[in-house]
Amino acid sequence: MASLRAAAQLRPMAARVLPRTVRTYATPSVKPFFTGEPERPHVKTAIPGPESQKAVAELDTVFDTRSLNMLANYQKSFGNYISDPDGNVLLDVYAQIASIPVGYSNPHLLKAARSEQMASAIVNRPALGNFPSHDWADIIKTGILKVAPKGLDQVFTAMAGSDANETAYKAAFMYRRQQERGGAHVEFSEEDIASSMLNQAPGAPQLSIMSFKTAFHGRLFGSLSTTRSKPIHKLDIPAFDWPQATFPLLKYPLEDHVEENRKAEDEALADVERIITTHHLPPCAVVVEPIQSEGGDNHASPAFFRGLRALTKKHNVLLIVDEVQTGVGATGKFWAHDHWNLETPPDMVTFSKKAQTAGYYFGNPELRPNKPYRQFNTWMGDPARAILFRAIIEEIERLDLVNNTAKVGNYLYGELERLAKQYPGEIQNLRGKGQGTFLAFDSNRRDEVLKKAKGVGINIGGSGERAVRLRPMLIFQEHHADILLEGLEKIFKS
Amino acid sequence: MASLRAAAQLRPMAARVLPRTVRTYATPSVKPFFTGEPERPHVKTAIPGPESQKAVAELDTVFDTRSLNMLANYQKSFGNYISDPDGNVLLDVYAQIASIPVGYSNPHLLKAARSEQMASAIVNRPALGNFPSHDWADIIKTGILKVAPKGLDQVFTAMAGSDANETAYKAAFMYRRQQERGGAHVEFSEEDIASSMLNQAPGAPQLSIMSFKTAFHGRLFGSLSTTRSKPIHKLDIPAFDWPQATFPLLKYPLEDHVEENRKAEDEALADVERIITTHHLPPCAVVVEPIQSEGGDNHASPAFFRGLRALTKKHNVLLIVDEVQTGVGATGKFWAHDHWNLETPPDMVTFSKKAQTAGYYFGNPELRPNKPYRQFNTWMGDPARAILFRAIIEEIERLDLVNNTAKVGNYLYGELERLAKQYPGEIQNLRGKGQGTFLAFDSNRRDEVLKKAKGVGINIGGSGERAVRLRPMLIFQEHHADILLEGLEKIFKS
Repeated sequence: MASLRAAAQLRPMAARVLPRTVRTYATPSVKPFFTGEPERPHVKTAIPGPESQKAVAELDTVFDTRSLNMLANYQKSFGNYISDPDGNVLLDVYAQIASIPVGYSNPHLLKAARSEQMASAIVNRPALGNFPSHDWADIIKTGILKVAPKGLDQVFTAMAGSDANETAYKAAFMYRRQQERGGAHVEFSEEDIASSMLNQAPGAPQLSIMSFKTAFHGRLFGSLSTTRSKPIHKLDIPAFDWPQATFPLLKYPLEDHVEENRKAEDEALADVERIITTHHLPPCAVVVEPIQSEGGDNHASPAFFRGLRALTKKHNVLLIVDEVQTGVGATGKFWAHDHWNLETPPDMVTFSKKAQTAGYYFGNPELRPNKPYRQFNTWMGDPARAILFRAIIEEIERLDLVNNTAKVGNYLYGELERLAKQYPGEIQNLRGKGQGTFLAFDSNRRDEVLKKAKGVGINIGGSGERAVRLRPMLIFQEHHADILLEGLEKIFKS
Repeated sequence: MASLRAAAQLRPMAARVLPRTVRTYATPSVKPFFTGEPERPHVKTAIPGPESQKAVAELDTVFDTRSLNMLANYQKSFGNYISDPDGNVLLDVYAQIASIPVGYSNPHLLKAARSEQMASAIVNRPALGNFPSHDWADIIKTGILKVAPKGLDQVFTAMAGSDANETAYKAAFMYRRQQERGGAHVEFSEEDIASSMLNQAPGAPQLSIMSFKTAFHGRLFGSLSTTRSKPIHKLDIPAFDWPQATFPLLKYPLEDHVEENRKAEDEALADVERIITTHHLPPCAVVVEPIQSEGGDNHASPAFFRGLRALTKKHNVLLIVDEVQTGVGATGKFWAHDHWNLETPPDMVTFSKKAQTAGYYFGNPELRPNKPYRQFNTWMGDPARAILFRAIIEEIERLDLVNNTAKVGNYLYGELERLAKQYPGEIQNLRGKGQGTFLAFDSNRRDEVLKKAKGVGINIGGSGERAVRLRPMLIFQEHHADILLEGLEKIFKS
């Protein structure tokens, strides 16, 4: 912030955002990625303003709006800025719950969206497993598979994070049962076949997927059984009696709690091993987020994840890495698990959100079920979205956005660290060092901070019970970080 | 067929489809909906031909192709005709597993796909529950909700049939538990909250969704627990111990088995009541397809469904009608359950496939959970697909396609009935009278029929163990029916 403030002193004041509040912004020291992006937020009305209120009231008659955060006009949103029907323009560091990768109305993506290949993909949506298009191999090879995690060269495409995880779980169950039977060539027994139709073992096996406390993996019945984020996600929904292991909740700053944190991670790994060896429904896979996101932005060290990989290998349990929120560049690596330096890759990696399509990667050919139609559904994803992901990857490469995010993340982390010293009640447990812009901190008055942020021109989200989570897009630059930092300071001062 | 053959005699032969096979086609007696649609299939090579084989081999290295039926070139597909990379052009009466509503490369849909509203929707995909677009109310009111089943005026949008059903199930569980608690205003107990996080009752309740034998409702963990179609769909996947009721497997022709069929339906209803009142996991909802599709095209009478509605009302169990495959016009009504003349509407109706988007309709405001974020996920559907559904509805209205399908279906049914008399081993248990083009019949050599159909220029699918299912698009006309009938006869003769 020092450099920012020094620069600001040299320039005249730049904008009036709130009545009676003069704010200054840095001039970009690095070239903006896009011409035509707003230079700063512009807050004209209380949010929601009168136009938004009218539209929300109309929408509420037919669609549940109680979780509505703000109404947006996306045709008028550009780059890092989201616009609303009242003409308010906010810097968006929430980005549709971490889902917008390269900016609103990104020109390169719009070009892909306007292509004839896209028009045909939208109108002629195939049942991919039965009738893929002649260019499907090309679309996934130049897109989805071009960024496949190391060691994983195959993909099963899906629709969103929940079913990406659930199809990965299904693959894990089929793989385990195939091993128990003695291999892919061994036929199902009559008992397997008959009992499966009755939802009973052995056909519907007494096996489980293990996840971690405070994890989030989706909200359909199987994925929700592995989700342990908040009661509001789970209440009243039947669940499988699957096990949860302790996640090592680290203490910050990390350098002051090295021993304690190592002990917490060792204990968590011991808990994993205990469950694998003793749970009444043996886990055939462990699913884990590189950074627990909905559950409050909980991090663990690369050593912990290497230990988890070793344990799963030792006990013949598959490791599924859920990169739905962490994947596609935000942590300063394309995949967050790239930070771990694993000796052997995860067995499956799931993706969605910033990929704008979904699915899971795998490498082991035995994870293809032994017969067709075992892993199948009508659409199996959406080629239109796969075409878009390809354009996203092109844009990431063109603008070197993974490195950008690593660099800007380091800058932002450093400035937040400084701010934390100034406002110790407002920024606690700052986390995400070296993890790009995938940063978070706890705040004593989190909900108030999130709410007030709109007034200073920033759209920002929370996670868990008291974390402010930063999920800017990959096109977030230092001058955007400066606007965010100034906005936060304004709130902290208020 | 008599009129068809008489007409054919007056005209010269029209096409050579297979070597040494002369075939004749009727001239359309009704104006074709689209100019530029092929007049007939064109089979140039064995299918798959050399180009397709090459492309499939390439695709197989990265994507499971064992369920592949044929590779398609959708840019070259038009109307009722699907093209492949070898230049083969087939009449498609399978339509991406009943999912293409108004023809490949439909001009009106392409116009919507090329619109700026669509481009923005593709590129700026919102987290709908938090940040809907300013035009979302308009998009759903002029689209999805314009065709809402009678009595149902609200919608929860989803991605595909499986999650449409699962979110409907979740709504049912929350509704039931809310009743048990004493109303929406009663807070969750500490025990509810704590146990839900442990996947245990009462927070994760010991309740169930009841479905029917041979039903299909999807393949994720909750929906698969209600699916009872085939072992290959269920083997090795853990399932909830939810109950299945007998579905009345009717005997054909219906007019010769009136008493027997009534008895079968009465027994099935008795089974439903027995399960509702005795199952150890009480059902809070019954889910049913108007016509069991994947399970073999099993029909029941409107009286049966009225009985089911009465029973569910009597026992305070919700009725969820799964119109994923039957919905959007194919049965000669917009929704298949319109055939039933229910006194009170179903509680929820799920949709996907021909809607090209997915979700569930409901009317009772108490089916909105008592708090926000209980029914929620990042994307909650896809506005791009909702815009497309609106265009589909416009096209259905413009061309009066529901009535077209009723009319053509009657014609096709009559001709199939005649064919059945000529080839009694080939067409058995013809079903779907009065149900538009949603027709099916059993065949002694079903798999052979499906396979040979490509050689005579027809892409056709099966369901269950031995049914040939017809799932033409809504733009299927009498002259297309004639081509289908001739093709079938050619196969039967071979």
